[in-house]
Amino acid sequence: MSPPRDLSQTPAVTAAPAQRTREPFVSPYMPKYPDPMSNISSFKIIESTLREGEQFANAFFDTAKKVEIAKALDAIGVDYLELTSPAASEQSYNDCKTIAGLGLKAKILTHTRCHMDDARLAVETGVDGVDVVIGTSSYLREFSHGKDMEYITDKAIEVITYIKSQGREVRFSTEDSFRSDLVDLLSIYKAVDKIGVNRVGIADTVGCANPRQVYELVKTLRSVVNCDIECHFHNDTGCAIANAYAALEAGATHIDTSVLGIGERNGITPLGGLFARMYAADKDYVMGKYDLKLIRNVENLVADSVEVAVPFNNYITGYCAFTHKAGIHAKAILNNPSTYEILKPEDFGMSRYVSIGHRLTGWNAVKNRIEQLRLTDMTDDDAKAVTQKIKELADIRPLSLDNVDSLLHQYHDAKKTSSHITILEKIATPDQLAEPAVKASTTQKQQQPIKK
Amino acid sequence: MSPPRDLSQTPAVTAAPAQRTREPFVSPYMPKYPDPMSNISSFKIIESTLREGEQFANAFFDTAKKVEIAKALDAIGVDYLELTSPAASEQSYNDCKTIAGLGLKAKILTHTRCHMDDARLAVETGVDGVDVVIGTSSYLREFSHGKDMEYITDKAIEVITYIKSQGREVRFSTEDSFRSDLVDLLSIYKAVDKIGVNRVGIADTVGCANPRQVYELVKTLRSVVNCDIECHFHNDTGCAIANAYAALEAGATHIDTSVLGIGERNGITPLGGLFARMYAADKDYVMGKYDLKLIRNVENLVADSVEVAVPFNNYITGYCAFTHKAGIHAKAILNNPSTYEILKPEDFGMSRYVSIGHRLTGWNAVKNRIEQLRLTDMTDDDAKAVTQKIKELADIRPLSLDNVDSLLHQYHDAKKTSSHITILEKIATPDQLAEPAVKASTTQKQQQPIKK
Repeated sequence: MSPPRDLSQTPAVTAAPAQRTREPFVSPYMPKYPDPMSNISSFKIIESTLREGEQFANAFFDTAKKVEIAKALDAIGVDYLELTSPAASEQSYNDCKTIAGLGLKAKILTHTRCHMDDARLAVETGVDGVDVVIGTSSYLREFSHGKDMEYITDKAIEVITYIKSQGREVRFSTEDSFRSDLVDLLSIYKAVDKIGVNRVGIADTVGCANPRQVYELVKTLRSVVNCDIECHFHNDTGCAIANAYAALEAGATHIDTSVLGIGERNGITPLGGLFARMYAADKDYVMGKYDLKLIRNVENLVADSVEVAVPFNNYITGYCAFTHKAGIHAKAILNNPSTYEILKPEDFGMSRYVSIGHRLTGWNAVKNRIEQLRLTDMTDDDAKAVTQKIKELADIRPLSLDNVDSLLHQYHDAKKTSSHITILEKIATPDQLAEPAVKASTTQKQQQPIKK
Repeated sequence: MSPPRDLSQTPAVTAAPAQRTREPFVSPYMPKYPDPMSNISSFKIIESTLREGEQFANAFFDTAKKVEIAKALDAIGVDYLELTSPAASEQSYNDCKTIAGLGLKAKILTHTRCHMDDARLAVETGVDGVDVVIGTSSYLREFSHGKDMEYITDKAIEVITYIKSQGREVRFSTEDSFRSDLVDLLSIYKAVDKIGVNRVGIADTVGCANPRQVYELVKTLRSVVNCDIECHFHNDTGCAIANAYAALEAGATHIDTSVLGIGERNGITPLGGLFARMYAADKDYVMGKYDLKLIRNVENLVADSVEVAVPFNNYITGYCAFTHKAGIHAKAILNNPSTYEILKPEDFGMSRYVSIGHRLTGWNAVKNRIEQLRLTDMTDDDAKAVTQKIKELADIRPLSLDNVDSLLHQYHDAKKTSSHITILEKIATPDQLAEPAVKASTTQKQQQPIKK
């Protein structure tokens, strides 16, 4: 771990996070002294559902849908919206004009190749800024555009100078940055930084980067340029969220996202997943800036539009994200939700569920249900006895909450006249319960867990 | 970046990775000298679908299904299978016996609380080893089991000694390790290492850890114990795969996975996602040890059993994982798939698709389709002209591959008698195409992209 640094040497970054009251869940392994380059408490989001997302296999957004998505993202509070290049098609050009004219709080960007023709079209549409990109890896130079670094640098300077002269924000990004030559990369970023580019971008176009690589590259770049640093991560090997986090720790300022992560192949850093990660790191910053309760709406909007289901295991909004099952977990969750939850469901407009009709159930969770049902004369021994019965029945097939409730009511009623053993013998098979046993299904309604 | 280290001081780790021929996609940002503690080329998988996966909200596995899943995972070549505690229910006990008796290549483990009763039951079932767990964070000590560290350490030593005396492998893991006190953690791990535990485990039970934290903790632990180190990561904040990778880089030896990542809440490191990550890091090791073409089958088996759909954006097997859409990508992919693919689809029994019936399409992809259709007298100018027409039509609604083919055939037939402009005027609206335009759907069959 690094020794405390002299923060006065890095005036661009405040030391505020160290003085803020820490949430109790912050790990003892978090550095005691904040990394002076870290932007985990001051990052910005470039939301690219209307650009990267349009490259998703299923995506076809007409103008009305684009406007609806843009407004929904603006309501959440994302800092930028990135749109498909106006050079892609006539409608793409018109859509840039339409969305740039909506008067949203978010700045509107479009994403173009490093060509003067594309840059002129972009400026014509009235967007606030242009995200310019070109491939610099030997792969892309050989198999995509066939240009050398000198040509790329000259072209970049021409395009950036033009866009700036038109009073627009401009970002210059390489593509496939993690397979580009380090000296080539730093040279071109230094050159464009010198002529006043607003941001440079690093893109893991193929999804091959891992967090330590990202941290090293961004840290190195941070020492070379003065402008902002934007990062774009594909998720082919499962690191898109972690790479975004590592990039921010190393001094990146802007992260590209899309709703549900949609994009080329299996996509990029998902907006909801990034919210989950950053909430765990600095809840105050994330909740102060973004309206997290709207994430579910925009995910449903986009999922419907591109005709996919929200994944069962999606961050925050996946149907089981806040469902607790194992007995040992349920007990602790009922005592204090922070024990097994790093995300408070209510901060995202979601609810917590504790599932009890299965063989992993524990008597503390069953006791909690007894209390909810106000079966006041049931003792801890009663709860343990019924729990044992639930486990036996659920070994045969899972029980619905109605099944469990029925069992509890039968036990409670029988208790007035019988011993425990007699009661449990009476309740012999799941078929004798009032409601049929259910196979849990992928809707929370059918699953019927306990809402705490 | 660290200077090259003297490898002779770390005899347990070979320097083999440095001598292996590197794949061309290895980044220049990979350390030039291999980290002597890294196990990215020698890790083992503890597959926990039948334990952690059983804690997934929807999971109910009867004995036959458990056996089917166990055999499918064994066929892939996972090193261990972890099963639900025999103390959970009678059927859980019997299932341990059944699966331990199958004679699989994988070692069979069961996962128990740190109790002598549980340990005795586990040994009775005939499993090869016992994964013992107890919570050490102040949260769990207060709200879950209420035990102090001295009690935990004494209990751990008693349980481990017993399991070893029975000739079984034993792992001791803390729970919620990233919110436990560092000195407490290291003390207990050191104590159990001294009495010969086979593995110690670190668990990010709440999914709050990030890769740099993981790297630091594992690296520190690596310097304290001589035994193996197992890691278990929940995915609440999107780092479960990246954390597993960081742990292996820091010297962890075993990673816990489940199929599709199923587990408590939104689950843990998914088996398929870990394969994708490790393939990108050391393809030879992963392909030499695991049968990657079987991942799709086991995912379908588990998804059907727990009644969820495989997420549209799933690693490797998600339906769009190898679908390329943007014109600039398609061109490069057709020249050399490595340009935009870090994973070769054929290594996973999958296929690559290039989608062309949309407004982001490029003429190189269209030209490739012309060649596939053997429309031999079409020139590059013809391909560009038809591409422009596809973009115009697809601005109104997306086109199926049949629509595109129809357009190409019409253009080709008309070319014999007309100029380009006349031809394109004739093909005025999508309604005039032979097949109706389709809205892309979530099945590859309906999507009808080009298989390369």
